[in-house]
Amino acid sequence: MTMHLNAFLMGVGHHEAAWRHPSTEPRRITDIRHYQDLARTAERGKLDSIFLADGLALWGNARHNALGGLEPLTLLAALATVTDHIGLIATVSTTYNEPFHVARKLASLDHISGGRAGWNIVTSAGEAEAANFGLTRPSHGVRYHRAEEFLQVAINLWDSWSEDAIVADRRGGVFADTTKIRPLDHEGTHFKVRGPLNVQRPPQGRPLLVQAGSSEDGKEFAARFAEAVFTAQQTLPDAQEFYADLKGRLHSYGREPRELKILPGVSPIIGSTEREAIRLERDLEELIIPAYGVQQLSNIFGVDLSDHPLDGPLPADLTQNPDGQQSRQRLVLDLARREGLSIGQLIKRLAGGRGHRVVAGTPEQIADQLQEWFEYGGADGFNIMPPLLPGGLADFVDYVVPELQIRGLFRKEYESRTLRGHYGLEAA
Amino acid sequence: MTMHLNAFLMGVGHHEAAWRHPSTEPRRITDIRHYQDLARTAERGKLDSIFLADGLALWGNARHNALGGLEPLTLLAALATVTDHIGLIATVSTTYNEPFHVARKLASLDHISGGRAGWNIVTSAGEAEAANFGLTRPSHGVRYHRAEEFLQVAINLWDSWSEDAIVADRRGGVFADTTKIRPLDHEGTHFKVRGPLNVQRPPQGRPLLVQAGSSEDGKEFAARFAEAVFTAQQTLPDAQEFYADLKGRLHSYGREPRELKILPGVSPIIGSTEREAIRLERDLEELIIPAYGVQQLSNIFGVDLSDHPLDGPLPADLTQNPDGQQSRQRLVLDLARREGLSIGQLIKRLAGGRGHRVVAGTPEQIADQLQEWFEYGGADGFNIMPPLLPGGLADFVDYVVPELQIRGLFRKEYESRTLRGHYGLEAA
Repeated sequence: MTMHLNAFLMGVGHHEAAWRHPSTEPRRITDIRHYQDLARTAERGKLDSIFLADGLALWGNARHNALGGLEPLTLLAALATVTDHIGLIATVSTTYNEPFHVARKLASLDHISGGRAGWNIVTSAGEAEAANFGLTRPSHGVRYHRAEEFLQVAINLWDSWSEDAIVADRRGGVFADTTKIRPLDHEGTHFKVRGPLNVQRPPQGRPLLVQAGSSEDGKEFAARFAEAVFTAQQTLPDAQEFYADLKGRLHSYGREPRELKILPGVSPIIGSTEREAIRLERDLEELIIPAYGVQQLSNIFGVDLSDHPLDGPLPADLTQNPDGQQSRQRLVLDLARREGLSIGQLIKRLAGGRGHRVVAGTPEQIADQLQEWFEYGGADGFNIMPPLLPGGLADFVDYVVPELQIRGLFRKEYESRTLRGHYGLEAA
Repeated sequence: MTMHLNAFLMGVGHHEAAWRHPSTEPRRITDIRHYQDLARTAERGKLDSIFLADGLALWGNARHNALGGLEPLTLLAALATVTDHIGLIATVSTTYNEPFHVARKLASLDHISGGRAGWNIVTSAGEAEAANFGLTRPSHGVRYHRAEEFLQVAINLWDSWSEDAIVADRRGGVFADTTKIRPLDHEGTHFKVRGPLNVQRPPQGRPLLVQAGSSEDGKEFAARFAEAVFTAQQTLPDAQEFYADLKGRLHSYGREPRELKILPGVSPIIGSTEREAIRLERDLEELIIPAYGVQQLSNIFGVDLSDHPLDGPLPADLTQNPDGQQSRQRLVLDLARREGLSIGQLIKRLAGGRGHRVVAGTPEQIADQLQEWFEYGGADGFNIMPPLLPGGLADFVDYVVPELQIRGLFRKEYESRTLRGHYGLEAA
C-alpha cells in the first residue's frame, strides 16, 4: 500500500502572505504558463492529481492578497493538454449550479484529459456567493439535501449513454444504438431534468468524486458518494478519530474502506536544514498583514472580530454559525482553546494553511510526519498545499517525493493513465 | 479592407452525412487531438477564429448522426494552449445560465488564451433544452429581454475590475487598489447580482461579442451589442438586404458600421476541378438518411413532418412557430417556395449547411463567390463550414486561402495577437 498525494494549487502559494515573498510573482495568478509549469512539476513527481479549490465570489480582501485568478474547469481543460497522466480535480458547487451544466462540463473534461477528471463537490457556505446569484444562502441542511439530489442527477446523466452505445456503422447508417441512450425524466425536490446528456459517456464512466465537508451532513454525504475526502486535521489523534469515523460509515452504504481515500491537507515548509525551514516560516509570518488575517477569521464565523485586540483571546461568546462551514469553525475554536492562543497568534497559525496542518522541517522530517499519519491510521495520503508556488511544489517533488519513494511509500512511476486508476478504482 | 474568416467546427463536418463519408472518423468527435489538429490547421491559414456552436440538449437523432461531442468552453480552453493567435468563439446561452458563471468562464478563457476569447450569444430556441433545466421554453420576446439584461450584467462584471486595479506592491502590502474593484449591486427583472467578478479584468476588456439571431429582436440586439453577426443567407440580394438593414441600425446606438462585422455561413465543397467538387457533393447526398433529414426539418418548425411524402411539397398550412428560431424557419420556407422544392429535395439542400449556403467548385470558383459577396455589400467575411473535417478545412486553408491572399482579400500574416485585434477593434 502506498500513499496518495495531490498538489493543491492556489495562486502563488497557500500561505496568505505568499504574494509578498520575494520568490513569487503575484501577477502570474492569471498567467496560464504559471499553472502549466506547476502541472508539469506535479506530474514529474508522479502525484495523483492537481486539485483546485473554488468559490463563487471574490474571497478575502484583494487589497491584501493576490486574488482574482482563473476558473477551475477552464483552467484544468487547459492543463489537460500539457500533461499525460496526472488527475485534474475541479471544485464545483452544487448550490449555485445546474446538474446538466456540471455533468456536461466534467464529462467534457474527462474526454479532453483521457479519463483524468475529478469533481470536488462543495455546497458553498459563503453568503457572498449567494448574492452573486440573487439568492440568500440556504441552510446547511438544505444545501446538503440539494447536493444529494444534484449528485444523483449528475450520475444518471453520465450513465445516460451506455458504454456500448456508439456503433459507428457507416454502411448501415447507424451511429449509435439509441436504445442505449436513455432520458432520465428526473423529477425531484430541487431538479427536473429530462436528459440524456449531450456528451458521450466519459472515459472513466464518471469523474472521481471528491468531498471536503467534515460536518455530520458532510460525513454522511462522503460515506455515500465520495471516493476521496479532503480534510483539515491538526493532530494525529483528531485525524485518527476522523479516519475511523468516516471509514466506519461506509459499511451501511455497502462500500469497502478501500473505496474512499482520506487525505488531510498538509502545508510543508521545506528547508535543507530544520533551521532553514523555521527561518522560512518566520519570514512568511513577518509578511502577514494582521488586518487581513482578522478579516479572514471574521469570515469563518460570520462575525466582525476587527474590534478585538490582537493580543487578547477570541470572544468568550463566539459560537459556531450553523449555516457556515461547520467543521472549519470547530477546528479553529478547538485549536485556539487547546493551545490558549490570542487572536494574533491564531492568525499566524491559520495563515499557513487556513486551518490545515503546517509542517516545517527537512525533507526527511516532513516524510517522517507523512509516514506517521499514513501508518497510524490517520490518512491514506495527503493534499499537499505548498506555502509558495512554484518553489514549494518543486521542493516537495524534488526532495520529499524521492524520500517517500525510497521508503516504499509512494509510486516511482504511474501505473495507470486515469485518475480512478491512480486511486486504485475501476472505471465506474 | 480584407475579409474576416472563421472556421466553424462541428464534429467531423457540417454535412449531416459527413460521418458516413470514408474520409472521416466519427469516433473522433470526443478526441481532443481531432480538434487540436483542426485548430492548428485554421491557424496555419491565418483565420480570425475557431467558432463552436452549442445546444443544451442532444440535438438531432444520434442513431443517424455523430453526436455527443465536447462542451465549447472546456474544449476552447484546451485549444488555447496549442495555438498562439487564432480567436476562440464559444456559443453560450443566456436563457439557461447565470451571468456570473458565464462572465467568469469567458474571462478565464480570455486570460488563458491571452485575449482571444469570443462569445456567441444565443437564447436557445429548443424545447428540449428547457426540459434539461426544469423549465418550459420562454417566449421569443422574454428570451431576448433576458439576454439584454444578461449581457449588461456580464459587461458590468468584466468592468468590475478597472484596468489599473492591480498594484502588486509587496513592500507596502497592497496587492490591489480595492477602490478600483467595485460591486455591481445589480437588481433587474431577471437577475440580482452583487459582484464584483472573482476573476481579474480580462486582457481584451471583454470577449468579442457575437450574435446570430436574424429575427427582428435578434437584429436589434445585434445592433446594440454585437461586434460580429453570423447569418444564414442563400442569395446575394438577401445577403445585401440583411447587411444594409443591420448596418443601418447601428447609428441609433451610436455605433459605426465598421464596429460590427457581418459574416454569412458558407459551406465550401472543394474539388481540383468543378466536376470533382460536384462529384463530392453527389457522394455526400447519396449518404443522406432521409428519415434523419425529415426529423431535422420537423425540429425546425416544431411539427412532425414524417407522414408527408418525400416527393411532395411542405404542407401548405406550415407556418412559423413564433417561439422557435424565427429566422431559420423563414429562410427554409423561402427556399422551398422560391425553388419549388419537394421535402426530399429540401432535405438535400439543407443537409450541407442546415440552411447556410453551399458552394461547390474549384478553389478559384469558391474565391470568386466569396469575393463577389464581399465586394458587393453582402458580407464583411464568412463563417466557413467545411462539409468534412479535417479534410474540408485543410483544403480551404491550402487552396482557397492562398487564392484570396493573392487577390489581396485576406491577410498573409496575423497583425495582432487578440481576437478583437483581428477584427480591427480596440480592447474594450
